[in-house]
Amino acid sequence: MNASEFRRRGKEMVDYVANYMEGIEGRQVYPDVEPGYLRPLLPDTAPQEPETFEDIVNDIERIIMPGVTHWHSPYFFAYFPTASSYPAMLADMLCGAIGCIGFSWAASPACTELETVMMDWLGQMLGLPEVFLAGKAGEGGGVIQGSASEATLMALLAARTKAIQRLQAASPALTQAAILEKLVAYASDQAHSSVERAGLIGGVKLKAIPSDGSFAMRASALQEALERDKAAGLIPFFVVATLGTTSCCSFDNLLEVGPVCNKEEVWLHIDAAYAGSAFICPEFRHLLNGVEFADSFNFNPHKWLLVNFDCSAMWVKKRTDLTGAFKLDPVYLKHGHQDSGLITDYRHWQIPLGRRFRSLKMWFVFRMYGVKGLQAYIRKHVQLSHEFESLVRQDPRFEICAEVTLGLVCFRLKGSNKLNEALLKRINSAKKIHLVPCHLRDKFVLRFAICSRTVESAHVRFAWDHICELASSLLAAGREQGESAAGECPAQPAQHPGVP
Amino acid sequence: MNASEFRRRGKEMVDYVANYMEGIEGRQVYPDVEPGYLRPLLPDTAPQEPETFEDIVNDIERIIMPGVTHWHSPYFFAYFPTASSYPAMLADMLCGAIGCIGFSWAASPACTELETVMMDWLGQMLGLPEVFLAGKAGEGGGVIQGSASEATLMALLAARTKAIQRLQAASPALTQAAILEKLVAYASDQAHSSVERAGLIGGVKLKAIPSDGSFAMRASALQEALERDKAAGLIPFFVVATLGTTSCCSFDNLLEVGPVCNKEEVWLHIDAAYAGSAFICPEFRHLLNGVEFADSFNFNPHKWLLVNFDCSAMWVKKRTDLTGAFKLDPVYLKHGHQDSGLITDYRHWQIPLGRRFRSLKMWFVFRMYGVKGLQAYIRKHVQLSHEFESLVRQDPRFEICAEVTLGLVCFRLKGSNKLNEALLKRINSAKKIHLVPCHLRDKFVLRFAICSRTVESAHVRFAWDHICELASSLLAAGREQGESAAGECPAQPAQHPGVP
Repeated sequence: MNASEFRRRGKEMVDYVANYMEGIEGRQVYPDVEPGYLRPLLPDTAPQEPETFEDIVNDIERIIMPGVTHWHSPYFFAYFPTASSYPAMLADMLCGAIGCIGFSWAASPACTELETVMMDWLGQMLGLPEVFLAGKAGEGGGVIQGSASEATLMALLAARTKAIQRLQAASPALTQAAILEKLVAYASDQAHSSVERAGLIGGVKLKAIPSDGSFAMRASALQEALERDKAAGLIPFFVVATLGTTSCCSFDNLLEVGPVCNKEEVWLHIDAAYAGSAFICPEFRHLLNGVEFADSFNFNPHKWLLVNFDCSAMWVKKRTDLTGAFKLDPVYLKHGHQDSGLITDYRHWQIPLGRRFRSLKMWFVFRMYGVKGLQAYIRKHVQLSHEFESLVRQDPRFEICAEVTLGLVCFRLKGSNKLNEALLKRINSAKKIHLVPCHLRDKFVLRFAICSRTVESAHVRFAWDHICELASSLLAAGREQGESAAGECPAQPAQHPGVP
Repeated sequence: MNASEFRRRGKEMVDYVANYMEGIEGRQVYPDVEPGYLRPLLPDTAPQEPETFEDIVNDIERIIMPGVTHWHSPYFFAYFPTASSYPAMLADMLCGAIGCIGFSWAASPACTELETVMMDWLGQMLGLPEVFLAGKAGEGGGVIQGSASEATLMALLAARTKAIQRLQAASPALTQAAILEKLVAYASDQAHSSVERAGLIGGVKLKAIPSDGSFAMRASALQEALERDKAAGLIPFFVVATLGTTSCCSFDNLLEVGPVCNKEEVWLHIDAAYAGSAFICPEFRHLLNGVEFADSFNFNPHKWLLVNFDCSAMWVKKRTDLTGAFKLDPVYLKHGHQDSGLITDYRHWQIPLGRRFRSLKMWFVFRMYGVKGLQAYIRKHVQLSHEFESLVRQDPRFEICAEVTLGLVCFRLKGSNKLNEALLKRINSAKKIHLVPCHLRDKFVLRFAICSRTVESAHVRFAWDHICELASSLLAAGREQGESAAGECPAQPAQHPGVP
């Protein structure tokens, strides 16, 4: 394919993309296919001779689309949002064309420098303390990671190196293995599974701190664990606080936990993967109070800030802590590189060596929406979740299971887990909307997350009506079959006004 | 921006991209900017109000392009190639629109299933043993990682878990820390720095095996290290063999090293990041002989197979080894998931949780080039490197420093390192072409890598003429200044015919 064919096919693809986005509401949000559906639709081997673009385009609707879960459908309320915006898509086209690999400043200066400045812009939008910004000569700074999992892992590795160095400086006879055996990391029992994974990869113990009645980690529980472990000869070195947990968007108490970490000289990493985007709104910024106690902070603009995946924003107070994570070996240290406010080699900040020109997406999105446009977007989602919450609260058959702060509503039918599992099964089998569940303590809970860029009040109301209808028929079936279909459900539809 | 504006702007961007690619030869391959150039060109903060697309497009040429190293210029001969093709760009547009996060089968079945089949297609193109393929019910299979660094790390973590489990099964009293302290990984002294990093992250020792005169790891040196370490009570568990090293594209002797690893029950991982693409050509497939001894194999289609970054292809013989890497903790094991030939949850195969629909790029590229088109592309690059090699060999002032097998030529002026450093400095200061150096043993060497999709014989000849010209003036300056400028150079231009 030469440039002139690309001009033609590229424009056709732009139209295909626009048609897809415009027509997405008409597509079934969750696919009908069964596992293994795709292989029989494809040849066993790659073709020897080139095929035409038409062949491929036709196969998109025939082979790919029937197996796609449409994350950007306004009927998609599962997981958390993943960002999608036209400015980000345009930027990605440019990124693909430039196609540089930005592992060092010299490998493409614009790629490195735009990233540093965009991370400063974004940090300022959040009101991050100055110490996290690169500025013109700061010791901190931001980096785009591929995912929050990588950010957590990088923070844990940096903290591990720092702890080992500190302990070996005090007791030179200590081996790395002897220290590793005693290092302990902590996170709330509501933290994301990627925290546990980071601990496994780093070869350190990870302990879950019991969260309180609001699913928040508190100082008392953390302090208790630290004391117990220190008394047992272990060495606490790393705490992950979550702002906006995956299950129910609860918030660890940063103002309590932060000072404990600082006092104990334990690295504090904040994972705000979903919720972080909301902090650009002054009315939600208080949720970030206490960030000043942290050593590193991360959230995903690729979730809720209209910057398409992948773009996970991470800041550290001291960039040398992060770049030092891989510099245990003296041989490595000999290859000195200048990591000042001017020259940044981002390969030292992350797991992979290669990296795309991802900051272009931030630049396009921030400029084409403006801060006000982004704030309006966040506010609309939060408002829609409160709208859903109030619909749930008006129906006495249902209960809200966790405080609704941002765009996630955790709810369930009053009654057994079995009943709620049956309801979710009916919802996801009907495929008019798509949800996923979570467990809160021993309760099976339905998560309703406001996800799509194009979701409106009408979609939320449709979803609620649909859920109510399914709940009614489920509860009716339960009454008829003497609970056999619906478990121990305390069906109360008589008390319920206003549901069709 | 709504869909109708995206239709317009997207088409403008397609033209911008096509113009960029068509005009890239006219752009200076390496930028003139100094560190810190970009920040003063941007406002200190993101705009509050939206800006127009025109504003941004104008800034691309004003702010971004002056700081871009043009990796796809036909005058770019640095590092290794990074892939760029129109079909991959078209696929990426579609990937951005679908915008699914494919961490599990259910999160988007097409995303998972196309990846499994594309990895089978690619494995067959390379002639990988059947055991590495997923097929309909195989135990092996492929996964797209973001980079070779991540593939090496995943392999090391899988091997580590396997070793710990085996040793604990034999001696239940052994702690993980006691085992970790004794585990040793090995790679040639020519291996990529990401191998050392994987060892640091995994908290295990990594030992460098001295390579032979052809920069290859041989069985004797490996066996010697294994014996020595075992005698010292250490536990060898992991070997990385490199096919196509970064410095000089040398090949570890797989047919020798493989059987040693199998006999010693040590996990063998093959890193063929650059060279792997060539194995689709029958005449280069012999370089992969011995892959049957490996547990895992990785190469980067995003380097040399026209699939834009990121697309690092990794296969394992037993997928459960890989997915088991994170399942040390019994609590985790309780959340059983079906990982059969039908249901694959790729989140268990990699470090990050999220992942883009990257297999679309493979599908578009494989079909629009066909296997024959891809083979022709590889052959053209290899032929161009041999053309450059023969130009170098005809000039007695220069020497070839390592066997030229694929698209990389390592060469230098006969003489001191200082002389060659001076030559490279002149080359990269002139900015007509761009190269990077390497060290081979104690020699400073220039690397000439065939990189661009559009590079032709004329560009290679231009580059050689240009290098010769700079070498001549450097050598002349050395003579005039009694060696002071050029070090101990043995300048012999009189013996040299045919250089302008």
